[in-house]
Amino acid sequence: MKFHYARSCSMPFCTQRRIEFRDTDAAGIVHFSAFFPFLESAEHELLRSLGLSVMQPLDDGGHLTWPRVAATCDYTGTAKFEDLLSIEVAVEHLGTKSVRYGFTIRRDASPIATATLTAVCCRLTADGQLTSIPIPDDVRQRLESVASG
Amino acid sequence: MKFHYARSCSMPFCTQRRIEFRDTDAAGIVHFSAFFPFLESAEHELLRSLGLSVMQPLDDGGHLTWPRVAATCDYTGTAKFEDLLSIEVAVEHLGTKSVRYGFTIRRDASPIATATLTAVCCRLTADGQLTSIPIPDDVRQRLESVASG
Amino acid sequence: MKFHYARSCSMPFCTQRRIEFRDTDAAGIVHFSAFFPFLESAEHELLRSLGLSVMQPLDDGGHLTWPRVAATCDYTGTAKFEDLLSIEVAVEHLGTKSVRYGFTIRRDASPIATATLTAVCCRLTADGQLTSIPIPDDVRQRLESVASG
Amino acid sequence: MKFHYARSCSMPFCTQRRIEFRDTDAAGIVHFSAFFPFLESAEHELLRSLGLSVMQPLDDGGHLTWPRVAATCDYTGTAKFEDLLSIEVAVEHLGTKSVRYGFTIRRDASPIATATLTAVCCRLTADGQLTSIPIPDDVRQRLESVASG
Repeated sequence: MKFHYARSCSMPFCTQRRIEFRDTDAAGIVHFSAFFPFLESAEHELLRSLGLSVMQPLDDGGHLTWPRVAATCDYTGTAKFEDLLSIEVAVEHLGTKSVRYGFTIRRDASPIATATLTAVCCRLTADGQLTSIPIPDDVRQRLESVASG
Repeated sequence: MKFHYARSCSMPFCTQRRIEFRDTDAAGIVHFSAFFPFLESAEHELLRSLGLSVMQPLDDGGHLTWPRVAATCDYTGTAKFEDLLSIEVAVEHLGTKSVRYGFTIRRDASPIATATLTAVCCRLTADGQLTSIPIPDDVRQRLESVASG
Repeated sequence: MKFHYARSCSMPFCTQRRIEFRDTDAAGIVHFSAFFPFLESAEHELLRSLGLSVMQPLDDGGHLTWPRVAATCDYTGTAKFEDLLSIEVAVEHLGTKSVRYGFTIRRDASPIATATLTAVCCRLTADGQLTSIPIPDDVRQRLESVASG
Repeated sequence: MKFHYARSCSMPFCTQRRIEFRDTDAAGIVHFSAFFPFLESAEHELLRSLGLSVMQPLDDGGHLTWPRVAATCDYTGTAKFEDLLSIEVAVEHLGTKSVRYGFTIRRDASPIATATLTAVCCRLTADGQLTSIPIPDDVRQRLESVASG
């Protein structure tokens, strides 16, 4: 049976996920677009591990949230139904108002994709207004703890 | 080339859609779960054709909306990438507070699935509270115009 | 924090999953169609726990596989981003060539959906031909071990 | 009513699509990952308009196909349920074995995203082997006809 875990995490945070049938396509492999929700879920899991959330309640009834401004993915391999992937995450760049996460996705220790997500720190008010703001200090410190290199 | 439209609509409303690659799976066919968004989109298109919306603004700042309480689908055939499907919709049952839509999905005139969606008429307040309400008269009249049989 | 596991499984097999952002919709809840891949993934996990696969290689180069012929879901509650759901599965009916799985989905011990998937046992040849066949005895015995009631 | 078409296509090929409910997320907007299937569907529509297919049958029983090696998207705006988007496509770069498509996605004439997809020309044999090959001349000529600039 092939269901052993890959153990080759070199970044600050690593998670695993098994490929579900809905993520495959008629070419018999994971659809290229399905990798992006995988990245996002790894990012959210990283945030939870730091005591943060991608929708963090603020004192004034609003939320701190992180809309995406860029996403990239380079594919060097493929994944199939029931494959177990490891997804590594690190903070590659921390700006005043933005963060860029870097990801490596592996299957059986071999990288099959490298990717980035760039998100902007925003205040979302209760009535749905979204404004970019500097990353609060306590959030910044936690994100720095998972910086790459 | 196979891209001609099926023209065999026997229900009050009919729409078409071409299968996208993301809706296929590793068995080479449309994933069974992908049919449900197809049904919903046909329902929404039906509502727009009646001058309604699945998120209808109300005078008090809230919305009239239709959460689903049941979904069923029986599969008698399959669909593949780039197939052109016709989706027929009718109102099968109109209750005081609920509506059940019936659907037939065809590929080249052959039915490949029959399905139902049951939705409840609800008031959604601006602060997110959801309460079931009787279907307003003007909405009811429009839905009756697309009843089956 | 809300991330404790629901522990109220009354069926033969139970799994958990956390709601991902991609599974939510603009109503702020999990899209009704997203429950179907959840059911299927629970079914596949059940099969793996029995030493089976939804795409079981056969000696002749073909596969034993289980195309769906029916799916139903009744929704009695909702789920939100990051909710942790428990999904219970049992074999509700075992025919000569088909199996119907029953599912209960819970959030914090409260059922939010009950559902069924009906699948037909098929031989898929290497060249893509699909023929329904009686469920092989060894597979039947394993499925009987997770029958409801 | 807002359902008029944007007509501001400056690239060689342009298509439209209406946002479906399944493509929205709990932030009330289209999920960032949903843009990638939109791009791919526009690419496939472009290919069909050129008399090509993303899975072109070859004389020897195999197929000419185009696995993705890179995808990027920069988000400068958002889209909501029922918005009508225009998606422009051009061939940005045509290599010996690869093609990079450039995309601009607009809502009401305003760009909300620019994106690229890079695909490699491959022969897929009947038994599933995938090998990169030079883009055949007749395919190359058709792709050149939709080059940007």
